[in-house]
Amino acid sequence: MQKYGGTSVGDADRIRAVADHVARTKKQGDDVVVVVSAMGKTTDSLIRLADDVSKIQPGRELDMLLTAGERISMALLCMALAELGVKATSFTGSQAGIITDSTHTKARIIEIKGDRLKETIKEGSVPVVAGFQGVSLEKDVTTLGRGGSDTTAVALATALGAQACEIYTDVSGVFTADPRVEPNARKLHKISFEEMLEIAASGGKVLALRSVEFARRHKVALHVRSSFTWESGTWIVEEEKGMEEAIVSAVTHDTSEAKITVTKVPDRPGIAAGLFRALADEAINVDMIVQNTSRDGNTDISFTVPKADLDTAVKVAKQVIPTIGGTEVLADPDVARVSLVGAGMRTHPGVTARTFETLASHDINIEMISTSSIRISCMVRAGVVEEAVRALHEEFELS
Amino acid sequence: MQKYGGTSVGDADRIRAVADHVARTKKQGDDVVVVVSAMGKTTDSLIRLADDVSKIQPGRELDMLLTAGERISMALLCMALAELGVKATSFTGSQAGIITDSTHTKARIIEIKGDRLKETIKEGSVPVVAGFQGVSLEKDVTTLGRGGSDTTAVALATALGAQACEIYTDVSGVFTADPRVEPNARKLHKISFEEMLEIAASGGKVLALRSVEFARRHKVALHVRSSFTWESGTWIVEEEKGMEEAIVSAVTHDTSEAKITVTKVPDRPGIAAGLFRALADEAINVDMIVQNTSRDGNTDISFTVPKADLDTAVKVAKQVIPTIGGTEVLADPDVARVSLVGAGMRTHPGVTARTFETLASHDINIEMISTSSIRISCMVRAGVVEEAVRALHEEFELS
Repeated sequence: MQKYGGTSVGDADRIRAVADHVARTKKQGDDVVVVVSAMGKTTDSLIRLADDVSKIQPGRELDMLLTAGERISMALLCMALAELGVKATSFTGSQAGIITDSTHTKARIIEIKGDRLKETIKEGSVPVVAGFQGVSLEKDVTTLGRGGSDTTAVALATALGAQACEIYTDVSGVFTADPRVEPNARKLHKISFEEMLEIAASGGKVLALRSVEFARRHKVALHVRSSFTWESGTWIVEEEKGMEEAIVSAVTHDTSEAKITVTKVPDRPGIAAGLFRALADEAINVDMIVQNTSRDGNTDISFTVPKADLDTAVKVAKQVIPTIGGTEVLADPDVARVSLVGAGMRTHPGVTARTFETLASHDINIEMISTSSIRISCMVRAGVVEEAVRALHEEFELS
Repeated sequence: MQKYGGTSVGDADRIRAVADHVARTKKQGDDVVVVVSAMGKTTDSLIRLADDVSKIQPGRELDMLLTAGERISMALLCMALAELGVKATSFTGSQAGIITDSTHTKARIIEIKGDRLKETIKEGSVPVVAGFQGVSLEKDVTTLGRGGSDTTAVALATALGAQACEIYTDVSGVFTADPRVEPNARKLHKISFEEMLEIAASGGKVLALRSVEFARRHKVALHVRSSFTWESGTWIVEEEKGMEEAIVSAVTHDTSEAKITVTKVPDRPGIAAGLFRALADEAINVDMIVQNTSRDGNTDISFTVPKADLDTAVKVAKQVIPTIGGTEVLADPDVARVSLVGAGMRTHPGVTARTFETLASHDINIEMISTSSIRISCMVRAGVVEEAVRALHEEFELS
């Protein structure tokens, strides 16, 4: 299974380069199934076109619109393969048998009917499947939402029993930190699904969380690599005994969230629930939550939300204050999060302490903290987050 | 049934204007089904993209590629209708039940399963159907070839029993001559299918021949009109008794063909057959054919082919000369055809004579002639064809 992202099929030259690589894989004797995204910024420009036409965009029609993109890239790739003498057949999500629920713009895969693809492989043809799209039981076209093409690839790899799922993109793998921030960042050779999940959740943009989770659940080994250099990338696999367990595998950062604080909330059971239920009802994803020590029976509750949802979240919080109590709602978009991820943390205590000491020695104030068994995240001022990444990268000797 | 061509949905503003017109039709109480083409030059730029990627373009993949265009325009139109409070649902050719044979890039419609469209109409929603496309019995995406969207509209109008089929385009109807050549050309209010067929076949570009033939066979009244001015256009209907039968309805011209002459071919049965069979085998459409009077048992055969096929046709003719006999193959791209079309010709002799006299009085030489019961076509030098159009337009008082 090979999946090519938007930049990998960004223009005619790129499509021919991908065809060349697919042809070589095929000639090595491996059966291969290809999943493609829409070319470059096609999806973005279709969305802009929709915005120009109408403010009301029914999900069914938005899905119909956006699925035009993969149709173009997959047909072109099949033509490029034909020129190289490799038989190839394109499939829409519907033709590939990717059956989803009816939640337009973020459908979930219910079932994969792989018959037509299997038959195509048996005939010696390379199936080229549109990523990101499926068909509902009502025979309407659906899309899988952000990172949907990765999900398509992983789901097809599962259904067809593929040996591995190669995700080709414009970076050469998963790094110990964002190389634009930390020039000494090193490419990871192999990491576990759990680490990759934490990296994806804490700001690493290489793979969408959902596709990693899908791969973990179905034990499909992922190989993230570059379609520009074709060098070996990062393998994402099940945690093995004897697998080298770095204490810290990567330092990630994320500037996409904002902080909201509700002050002087009564410290009573059910109060926080009232607030976060109201936010959930507006489909706002709350990430970190911190509640200060109670003083005079009141407490401050801080939480983070995506910056895009900040205004709505503030409005919701202000609406519930009369019900739950509280004085003020403070919005702070000027924050960023730095995280350490590593499966070795489970067995090496003291990482948290070293993290705090390192940040303190750089005069970086920690405003919020959240941890999992293999991750530590600290919210800091946005202006110092890159310094924090570099300091932690050095402290944990990731170069 | 309303069909909107590429220029009618060329940009966001045009799409909103079309939505507005559809909404007004719907609010008048009429059920309406809409067929759309791809926006503006979308199809052309997809073809260019394919040419950039590969010289080998399997028909199945070309169809997959080109059908992306209507997907975009129909989804956008549905959004624009939603904003006007009109429920609308887009349908691909496949979803609309347009079943075709498997001849990719020029499929023929076998059957229309209108159930899903009828259900949508019953639910009060406006079906917006992708023109130009269908699905084969093997569940592959097909396209109907040039003018395919008109064919879709006419076929759906037939299947759904529509009152009329309105074809919206960038001209306001069918004219007595091309207004760019003859400024006094007049819009025709009503013409018969037969006349429209002859006009389409002899260079009138408003409607594709195939869709007119389909409409004639199924007796679907067509109304060709402008989506820019929305004024009433030209009705194309069955010939009625009492219908005003103009001797000449229109003067058309066509500069898309070239002339080939094979000299000194033996004047024996089977010789012409050998030549034209060879051309047919290369799928070259031969239009006019003229054979000169025999001299010494030999004759010159002249015929016209589309300019795009000229080189191939010359090659084919040279290849058959050793078999059929003949001396030279002369290619002449510098010709053009002027035609007179009118149902009244059947009952008014003398039109041919008047045509020849008119051209002669302008010193225009006629190189080939062909006629049907309601058409006279003359091949002339390309440089004088516009003068010929104006002369005949005046002679037959079409202004």
